[in-house]
Amino acid sequence: MEALARERFSIPNDVIYLDGNSLGALPRATPERLRALMREEWRSDLIASWNKHGWIDLPMSIAARLAPIVNAKPAELLIADSTSVSLFKLLAAAARARSGRKTILTQRRNFPTDLYVAQGLCDMLGLTLRAVDADAVRDSIDDDVAVVSLTHVDYRSAAVHEMAAINRASRDAGALTCWDLSHSAGAIEVDLAGTECDLAVGCGYKYLNGGPGAPAFIFVAERLLETMHPPLQGWMGHAQPFAFEDGYQPAPGIARFLTGTPSILAIAALDCGLATFDGIAMADVAARSRGLSQAFIDAVEARCGDAVSLASPGDPAARGSHVCFAHPHGYAVMQALIARKVIGDFRAPDLMRFGFAPLYNDEGDVLRAAEILGEILDSRAWDDPRFHARAKVT
Amino acid sequence: MEALARERFSIPNDVIYLDGNSLGALPRATPERLRALMREEWRSDLIASWNKHGWIDLPMSIAARLAPIVNAKPAELLIADSTSVSLFKLLAAAARARSGRKTILTQRRNFPTDLYVAQGLCDMLGLTLRAVDADAVRDSIDDDVAVVSLTHVDYRSAAVHEMAAINRASRDAGALTCWDLSHSAGAIEVDLAGTECDLAVGCGYKYLNGGPGAPAFIFVAERLLETMHPPLQGWMGHAQPFAFEDGYQPAPGIARFLTGTPSILAIAALDCGLATFDGIAMADVAARSRGLSQAFIDAVEARCGDAVSLASPGDPAARGSHVCFAHPHGYAVMQALIARKVIGDFRAPDLMRFGFAPLYNDEGDVLRAAEILGEILDSRAWDDPRFHARAKVT
Repeated sequence: MEALARERFSIPNDVIYLDGNSLGALPRATPERLRALMREEWRSDLIASWNKHGWIDLPMSIAARLAPIVNAKPAELLIADSTSVSLFKLLAAAARARSGRKTILTQRRNFPTDLYVAQGLCDMLGLTLRAVDADAVRDSIDDDVAVVSLTHVDYRSAAVHEMAAINRASRDAGALTCWDLSHSAGAIEVDLAGTECDLAVGCGYKYLNGGPGAPAFIFVAERLLETMHPPLQGWMGHAQPFAFEDGYQPAPGIARFLTGTPSILAIAALDCGLATFDGIAMADVAARSRGLSQAFIDAVEARCGDAVSLASPGDPAARGSHVCFAHPHGYAVMQALIARKVIGDFRAPDLMRFGFAPLYNDEGDVLRAAEILGEILDSRAWDDPRFHARAKVT
Repeated sequence: MEALARERFSIPNDVIYLDGNSLGALPRATPERLRALMREEWRSDLIASWNKHGWIDLPMSIAARLAPIVNAKPAELLIADSTSVSLFKLLAAAARARSGRKTILTQRRNFPTDLYVAQGLCDMLGLTLRAVDADAVRDSIDDDVAVVSLTHVDYRSAAVHEMAAINRASRDAGALTCWDLSHSAGAIEVDLAGTECDLAVGCGYKYLNGGPGAPAFIFVAERLLETMHPPLQGWMGHAQPFAFEDGYQPAPGIARFLTGTPSILAIAALDCGLATFDGIAMADVAARSRGLSQAFIDAVEARCGDAVSLASPGDPAARGSHVCFAHPHGYAVMQALIARKVIGDFRAPDLMRFGFAPLYNDEGDVLRAAEILGEILDSRAWDDPRFHARAKVT
């Protein structure tokens, strides 16, 4: 299994990078795009660049590249803010659209920022955040639920929610559903149109390769657009920002979800990240993702036996594009792997996490990573105190 | 009057740029900084860069450069999100801290996004947004006001509010005050400590030269920090983001005002913008600002007479770092100026706006601009239909 587009990335040759689910690798095109943006647009045309170089439309126009990745219409997609801020906007708009209802439903151990954002909104509005086990979500959607807030792929186990079924149950109960696609967009098939999604957000800096802290994206189904009113309203979401009117009038369509002026440098970098998917079918990406993660599981189980235990679904169809193995000394083992240039990450209490980016990872990466993991476990590298030092970011 | 640091910027030689109040010019150091960030950090060290290159601390650490510009402590400052989102966070936190009170007080014709943000928050919380004339603000602060939301320098007239007096009146009434410093930080003296400010936000892409859509900054006075709880709570503002706890615990200090993961590319560019102020006293910046705007007013009035009328305070001490002149054909006259490479902008209905960035504008710029304005007015250039075309961004 070759990588689908390794040549589109600049990655050190001696590194096996299995953390594209945390920070996507550098696309080859990004440095030149930002150089040109700075030298030939910002420097040369200064304020006129907003018109001349289409900066003002970038949050909407680059959505055309994102649309096939999540199977949505460009007019349903917007690039803006962080995932957390974007989620706040959508949950708040959903709560307003279902204003008689007093509950936001989520799952226990959802990605923490999703829980924090929902909790903050509930505190503000006097709503209740109800968190249930993942497999109990569908049966917990009652007529007090305004919005169901879920992450499509679990950031630890990589377990995948059944999007279509939950969307249907939610709609039947009169609720809206908002998906966080941070660990799925760009790695597995996401079918926002086919599963009749209402709302979604996603991360730009993981599988979409937009660079550290890249802006997020927002999806609002076309059928809902004119009824959704984000309370985080700012001039960039105004129908006529440059009329400088005292009263707020939401822009028609998805642009109303803009708030302030977005970073053009950051959006241009994300555009280069999205361009790494140009011409590649998401079905091929998804098939490669399943192939890589399965090859890794098979190789680790063959090489390491019972020394580690799989903490992700065994069925590739129920799994996102990363895999967790548990080990009692998981933190130190991961540090030992990183010292050998196999880059994954660690999630408490004992999970070693390995992500597979189908655009730049290949079978050689996963087989070599499994072998090095085996060598580290054989040598009991976790006894080495230099692998115990804790960094701020893990 | 020489510019204070023209050599720190890359600006086309044939342009007289008087719109640094909308988009600051490109610092010479920015392209190389971003190139190195992409090639030597993101590419080479990938996810490890968050620790190894201090990315995780950037939103706080670059505040040390901002601190002398607004006379605050670094621990009171944070770089994050857009100005609009930042303002929402502060107003919401202020409303929560004064939860018995039901009014947000602002001024009529405040910068529109400030009005939109406050209105959106009021709609959410059932508060009232009360807008009064600028000179009536101080006497309108009663015991129902939770927070006073004002822009320090008016984006049209450049009229400056008396910060210390309003802070005092507000505190006497038990309210908080939140200043938008977008049109003042980096151009005139801002003394957050000396005027005993509570809260402030400011724009990174105007006089701070952070690039198009640069992140904003937040100021929260140290004495208030532990009592302020932004409801827009996300993992980056958590006490231990990488513990991935289900429950939100705000970080100690200003970091709790972080929400999602910020764009490292955008913050690094802003750091280069702030670095253009290194070693320059803000008193010198402010003196140069007053000198340049006064020289421009004097030259325009001498050259153009009654053809235009000053729409900014005549007293330099009551004025920010830009100047507006009104003309019935202001839009077309500004387009004619731009065609002659004198770059200002236009604000409806009839204001031609000229900004003076003391770091890169000099007396030659303002005298030459006044002369070209005179020539354009003499020639009745507004009759030329090519100057009537309206662009999306003005």
